[in-house]
Amino acid sequence: MPKISNRGENIPFSPFRKLMPYAQAAKAKGKKVYHLNIGQPDIATPPWAVQKLKETAIDVLAYSPGAGWAPLRKAVADYNQARGIAITEEEVLVTSGASEGLYFLFIACLEAGDNIIVPEPFYANYNGFAHMADIELKSITSHIEDEFALPDIDKFEALIDNRTRAILITNPNNPTGCVYSKATLEALGRLVKKHDLFLFSDEVYQDFCYTDEPFFSALSLQGVQEHVVVLDSVSKKYSACGARIGYIFTKNEQVFHSVERCSKLRLSPPALSEFLAIYMLENDQEYMASSKAAYDSRRRTVFNRLKNMPGVTCYLPKGSFYCFAKFPVQDAEHFCRWLLESFEHNGETVMLSPGQGFYATPGLGIDEVRIAFVLNENKLNHAMDCLELGLAKYTEVEANLVSQLT
Amino acid sequence: MPKISNRGENIPFSPFRKLMPYAQAAKAKGKKVYHLNIGQPDIATPPWAVQKLKETAIDVLAYSPGAGWAPLRKAVADYNQARGIAITEEEVLVTSGASEGLYFLFIACLEAGDNIIVPEPFYANYNGFAHMADIELKSITSHIEDEFALPDIDKFEALIDNRTRAILITNPNNPTGCVYSKATLEALGRLVKKHDLFLFSDEVYQDFCYTDEPFFSALSLQGVQEHVVVLDSVSKKYSACGARIGYIFTKNEQVFHSVERCSKLRLSPPALSEFLAIYMLENDQEYMASSKAAYDSRRRTVFNRLKNMPGVTCYLPKGSFYCFAKFPVQDAEHFCRWLLESFEHNGETVMLSPGQGFYATPGLGIDEVRIAFVLNENKLNHAMDCLELGLAKYTEVEANLVSQLT
Repeated sequence: MPKISNRGENIPFSPFRKLMPYAQAAKAKGKKVYHLNIGQPDIATPPWAVQKLKETAIDVLAYSPGAGWAPLRKAVADYNQARGIAITEEEVLVTSGASEGLYFLFIACLEAGDNIIVPEPFYANYNGFAHMADIELKSITSHIEDEFALPDIDKFEALIDNRTRAILITNPNNPTGCVYSKATLEALGRLVKKHDLFLFSDEVYQDFCYTDEPFFSALSLQGVQEHVVVLDSVSKKYSACGARIGYIFTKNEQVFHSVERCSKLRLSPPALSEFLAIYMLENDQEYMASSKAAYDSRRRTVFNRLKNMPGVTCYLPKGSFYCFAKFPVQDAEHFCRWLLESFEHNGETVMLSPGQGFYATPGLGIDEVRIAFVLNENKLNHAMDCLELGLAKYTEVEANLVSQLT
Repeated sequence: MPKISNRGENIPFSPFRKLMPYAQAAKAKGKKVYHLNIGQPDIATPPWAVQKLKETAIDVLAYSPGAGWAPLRKAVADYNQARGIAITEEEVLVTSGASEGLYFLFIACLEAGDNIIVPEPFYANYNGFAHMADIELKSITSHIEDEFALPDIDKFEALIDNRTRAILITNPNNPTGCVYSKATLEALGRLVKKHDLFLFSDEVYQDFCYTDEPFFSALSLQGVQEHVVVLDSVSKKYSACGARIGYIFTKNEQVFHSVERCSKLRLSPPALSEFLAIYMLENDQEYMASSKAAYDSRRRTVFNRLKNMPGVTCYLPKGSFYCFAKFPVQDAEHFCRWLLESFEHNGETVMLSPGQGFYATPGLGIDEVRIAFVLNENKLNHAMDCLELGLAKYTEVEANLVSQLT
């Protein structure tokens, strides 16, 4: 039998992948599982846009151009211009989710063996795309004590070597909920200019910032426009994860054309979703205000619940819909598994993402967990009940359980 | 300014890419251009399926699993089982077009530096995906005199080295319209078994075979089930190229899981299109019969017109919706450009794909052209009028034109 490749075999799994069989087993036993492990929101996809899609005449569902259907590129540019981001439709390239955009950027801008500096914890799938593109992610640790603020710029500078090609940030951050300030971005801007690096800024949560300070996009940085590539998506903005519509913005024509070459190979983004994306972008103010208010309230609920749990370290996240918390356990993955396998409260339990998979540095995040507040307030409170009771019970008998189960 | 990568810069363009500005310029001047250069059919996407999509309640357009939505995997398996292909839903993995499936296979099954043997001319984007995955395509030339039949098996065997991992075929073939027989497939099966290789069979045109012999899928080969991976798609079958729904079939669990790891990174196929694909697969017999009859008639039209053009070598293609023809010109790319730039007939002209880009061997295909019969009979005849008159005029003055334009 012919063998698969090492590179195929070693594509990293998601942080909660190992827990999936336990979640399935729990459900098979009739347990209700609250999924706070994945960024799949419960908020309805804009109904007016779904309705307009249904009213759209579709004769031949044809390929779009590789870079996306021109009316969508224009809609994305218009949307951003209205928010003060000076981007033209020629600078917008539509991808099948921001994920594809990031992967194409890795290929378009880096040779095999090059590296990118990224603050950790970071969105775990970056690891997988880096692995597929044969590049290295060099991580700088951010800390819960600082609410995962960006580490000092000199720590980034110290990591730069002759194979470093870019800095990658997620702003607002997944998994930490941190939002980087204008001053922080400007410091990064000076650094990429000094060392002639790219700045890849994944801004798919840009609409979910809960502080008074307005969100500052890397695209607004002055003097480094040819260094910056921003990734965005309709997935989180409009709770349309299944649409698979993302886009990259860049004023660097070489980058645009290099990514476009990748995009032409796969021929077209999904065209039905392109229609939907246009309709969503057209008229979203009320919808966005309501979504943002819902997440804002949820983050407060999660924070208020967590801070009353003995031994838990947490903070009020400033953006996105995640919180990264430290638990009084020796092995958060084991605790998450135990919640699924051995715990229930009124027939219910909760699934979380163990923190370790969000770090590149071995041994970090072992007592941390990512919580996605993607369920409504009522469910969130039920989930937090499970977490609170589970944590109390687990810590009581942890030593004993660890020896039994591992 | 930071530089893009060599690998990004060197992603190959499509065979007709260089001609695009000339097509645009022709249209800007008011010329009507018949596009026989691209496999984008004019046939309507199944209206009943579009209607059912419009009747589907969509609340949250969520991620599907990486391997695709379970009901779609089942629909695909059922569809194939009904046609005598013994494949289960666990052996079906949904991809964003067959293109993504092929790329994932390259990563999942080959290390960087490994190679795949493929008969040329072949679908030009294979080059690009091989380039991105850092693998080599080793080509074996098929010939117009044989109607591009598969070269002798010993020619394949002679090319196998210690980095060869797979043989890749397109059956029915794009760009040649050749269909490989059961006996041919069996010979390939023996070869991959003997040398422990994979057989990747791109069968996206399997519904368009115009001979009496039934189409023989590589999945039907006996004794080599763990070697075979088949790629298919709804794009051509249902004229739904923009849906971006393809799928791979394999009974090799290791391959399945390796591809699945890639698929989980990009999270989900496009979910709206997954609905549409299910509806299309449900009830397509009348539709498929009518599409096939249309293409059958078109291939006869193209063949009958080509065979009456002096100096043109052609044949009646047995499958897909392409014909690869040899023209009495020194440089087919120059001729194709001239058709757009310097020729018109009643304000019309035709765009074709120069043959060279479909070969890996330098210098081959230089006087050949791919013709996609994706327009209706009336338009096809107009396009053939342009081709016939253009060819007569061009060959008359070719020497003179070449010296003027190059």
